Amino acid sequence: MMIWLLCLEPFMIQLLLESLQWNINGTTSRTPISQIGESPYYDNLYRWITDPTLRVTFRVDPHVKINRGIVLGKNMHESSLEIREPEMDDEVTGEMDAHMAAVLARYRKTLVERTKFHLGYPYNLDFDYGALSQLQHFSINNLGDPFIESNYGVHSRQFEVGVLNWFARLWELEKDEYWGYITNCGTEGNLHGILVGREVLPDGILYASRDSHYSVFKAARMYRMEAVKVDTLISGEIDCTDLQRKLTEGRDKPAILNVNIGTTVKGAVDDLDTILKILKEVGYTEDRFYIHVDGALFGLMMPFVKKAPKVTFKKPIGSVSVSGHKFIGCPMPCGVLITRMKHINALSRNVEYLASRDATIMGSRNGHAPIFLWYTLNRKGYRGFQKEVQHCIRNAHYLNDRLRKVNFGVLLNELSSTVVFERPEDEAFVHKWQLACQGKIAHVIVMPSVTVEKLDLFVEGLIEARKHSFADGNVIVPCIAEEIGPQNCACSLHRYGLLTTPLKNATQIGTHENQLTFK
Amino acid sequence: MMIWLLCLEPFMIQLLLESLQWNINGTTSRTPISQIGESPYYDNLYRWITDPTLRVTFRVDPHVKINRGIVLGKNMHESSLEIREPEMDDEVTGEMDAHMAAVLARYRKTLVERTKFHLGYPYNLDFDYGALSQLQHFSINNLGDPFIESNYGVHSRQFEVGVLNWFARLWELEKDEYWGYITNCGTEGNLHGILVGREVLPDGILYASRDSHYSVFKAARMYRMEAVKVDTLISGEIDCTDLQRKLTEGRDKPAILNVNIGTTVKGAVDDLDTILKILKEVGYTEDRFYIHVDGALFGLMMPFVKKAPKVTFKKPIGSVSVSGHKFIGCPMPCGVLITRMKHINALSRNVEYLASRDATIMGSRNGHAPIFLWYTLNRKGYRGFQKEVQHCIRNAHYLNDRLRKVNFGVLLNELSSTVVFERPEDEAFVHKWQLACQGKIAHVIVMPSVTVEKLDLFVEGLIEARKHSFADGNVIVPCIAEEIGPQNCACSLHRYGLLTTPLKNATQIGTHENQLTFK
Repeated sequence: MMIWLLCLEPFMIQLLLESLQWNINGTTSRTPISQIGESPYYDNLYRWITDPTLRVTFRVDPHVKINRGIVLGKNMHESSLEIREPEMDDEVTGEMDAHMAAVLARYRKTLVERTKFHLGYPYNLDFDYGALSQLQHFSINNLGDPFIESNYGVHSRQFEVGVLNWFARLWELEKDEYWGYITNCGTEGNLHGILVGREVLPDGILYASRDSHYSVFKAARMYRMEAVKVDTLISGEIDCTDLQRKLTEGRDKPAILNVNIGTTVKGAVDDLDTILKILKEVGYTEDRFYIHVDGALFGLMMPFVKKAPKVTFKKPIGSVSVSGHKFIGCPMPCGVLITRMKHINALSRNVEYLASRDATIMGSRNGHAPIFLWYTLNRKGYRGFQKEVQHCIRNAHYLNDRLRKVNFGVLLNELSSTVVFERPEDEAFVHKWQLACQGKIAHVIVMPSVTVEKLDLFVEGLIEARKHSFADGNVIVPCIAEEIGPQNCACSLHRYGLLTTPLKNATQIGTHENQLTFK
Repeated sequence: MMIWLLCLEPFMIQLLLESLQWNINGTTSRTPISQIGESPYYDNLYRWITDPTLRVTFRVDPHVKINRGIVLGKNMHESSLEIREPEMDDEVTGEMDAHMAAVLARYRKTLVERTKFHLGYPYNLDFDYGALSQLQHFSINNLGDPFIESNYGVHSRQFEVGVLNWFARLWELEKDEYWGYITNCGTEGNLHGILVGREVLPDGILYASRDSHYSVFKAARMYRMEAVKVDTLISGEIDCTDLQRKLTEGRDKPAILNVNIGTTVKGAVDDLDTILKILKEVGYTEDRFYIHVDGALFGLMMPFVKKAPKVTFKKPIGSVSVSGHKFIGCPMPCGVLITRMKHINALSRNVEYLASRDATIMGSRNGHAPIFLWYTLNRKGYRGFQKEVQHCIRNAHYLNDRLRKVNFGVLLNELSSTVVFERPEDEAFVHKWQLACQGKIAHVIVMPSVTVEKLDLFVEGLIEARKHSFADGNVIVPCIAEEIGPQNCACSLHRYGLLTTPLKNATQIGTHENQLTFK
């Protein structure tokens, strides 16, 4: 049986779906509805509906009224603002102007509200680019290579190159040895880095941990590359033992590795130095591996944490990408990709086949984003970022401590400001705070825009939300030891490791004492 | 011998390089320097320097002083605005604020100037989004699928879906039968369309004309697809005879075709109906071909021209993409991609391998772009666009006529507002008007922001520039019959076809009489 739902908001879908019974390949289940959200998180739900290899049926709760509906993976967002053809006399009556102004005013109000209550995504929402609003009147386009001037004159390459020079310096690559560009988002950085890796080592196998951003495996599929998923520790770091085993198995072919500096869900940092050691031990010479470092969020925070391992091109890595709209903050998504000049030259050797000489993935490129980044880098500088990183990590520890005090299972990796805890049952609460969820866990990413006051408000709400999930008010703390380790789990069995039952990888979980020092 | 140049502007590089003598694989040449410019245009120049398979030598003119320089493909844009670390007392002295304000004010002035003199790229620079500047304070991100709500609340999906519905209607695909999203640029639309084609027909061969946008062949390379380049007529249209031959040769495998609605250089429209006829004749059933329509610029103009063939999903096409920053006009590049729902479902069948469920190429997506598009679509509506298309095509004909009157070779395809003519020798003039050039030709693309007054100014400048290229003032009109056909060439041999020498494909060139009618 196929059902159709009409819903405006994900938490409404949630509520609706909660009242259905799933029957998947014969097993009844009600759980994974929680996984609507950012792309990697709604895997299961989506598959149930669209994957014809799964026999999915729904049983509708008779108390729920369903009007009409959707094929999932389509039309779940039904609240669309349709385009209205202007009337002939619009210019006289001002009808259209009034309509548009009303829509925009309402929308602005929503944005203010949604920005206020936001903790789930790694976006710094605290920025003021008022000084740049004068530039919105221009169609600024840095088409093609940032280092080759186009005939199109309305560009911002001088800002872009300034920003790229700053990042190249941060990651210690000389001006005449690097190439890079400002991307549209973290995904484009990963797509580019992995493409460069494949062009340098055409028959290379891609190795990446299963906690890598979904764009990494998307790249493998797009580029028709052999890809090997490597296990992770509970902390979210790549499991170096498993990596070593898999690199050994695949050693007949070159290796292209994706190394995470801050995974999406747990903020874990892969151990670059150990990975390099393993490559050497297994017998990969430097011309037989290529490392792309996905530093989406933390690649820009880590340089300002003293104890953190260093991302630097003095190590044999091929490319690094970070997002610009995350830690820095920007009205639209953007990112930075830096690679070695020699790799780009390798890429362009096959020009004839490529039939083009552009080395970027996109052709036309947003010329406003570089100006936003340039503006913030100038205003804040190294010292400003350092202060903000301290602020974030301190507040993450504050949240971690507060949650432990009120009996929540919680994981905070040492180098991270991502606080992982049990997924709240209360969907309205998840929606309000825009929490990204995966299975039984959710996370808060403490960004510069997150204050202690906001965290207090959040924790109080979370406690309330938990209470409401139990009809009799007697809270039973769920076990999430599998996800965050027994020493971090607050359930009656584990109690933060006091009553440890041995678990796979349990000894390898990162500590989260409040011992970080800053440069 | 390797030379190094230091230059700030491409036309300076041009001037410098013009004074060198090239020696390529033994042949001396001075021509293709003109090909610095947008990515597809600087192929040759770039290759000469970076491609080790070509033996390139330069002989430096003794009158030219060369200071130091660059490896081409790098550092040609040397004027970068470096990031300055703020001083401790900046907040007191206001030094940094003053510096930034000065840089931005200077930059704004350049933008005004460069926007004023612009004819070479298909960007409508005439827009006023003042009403939307209030939204620049928000980090608006439509991450993932536009139809699946994310937990991240600061998005603009309601605007995006509104815009997509408008385009689906324009191209006649039912709401529940289409899927699409707002891309970062035309390239992303092509990358997506061709990826969908490859996923639907994994061993399909990609066929595209050699006048296709460079992103089409870039896609083939990225996706490791077999690609076949098809010849073009002088008009820039795909040569259907050659296509038929190549489709016949490749008929053991399915076909993925890129069809151009307005090529980059000549604005030519491939004949979709004939292509469909050929596919049938050669024996491709509908399940054995996939057509992606690249409508970058003209895909949005053509629906408003009465005589134009129709782009519609009632024909067996798989996807259509257009750019949003071109005809519509937008501060940053963006585009629209519409495909059939069933194809996206096919794409998502391999979820397990993909390890993700997102169907877009980028992950985080600019949430401002949909609002800009939504705003303009509402304000102008079908009728507004129709008026603007009329304006563009009329003005293109005006320019065409004026140029012919003053003895310039000129090509204007019937359905286009792209006027192709001889490449001016005067590089300062090319730079001033930001003309995109290829080989011996340049073009002006008449957009809504281009007025008759601007065109008059341009033609007067062009006449002056041509005169200055001849020391004695005796103008010799160059022959560009190979590029635009003898009937369009003004050289002493052809004189607009009056003295025709038979040329390949000469009879197949589009006419350019002023006979267009409008809906």
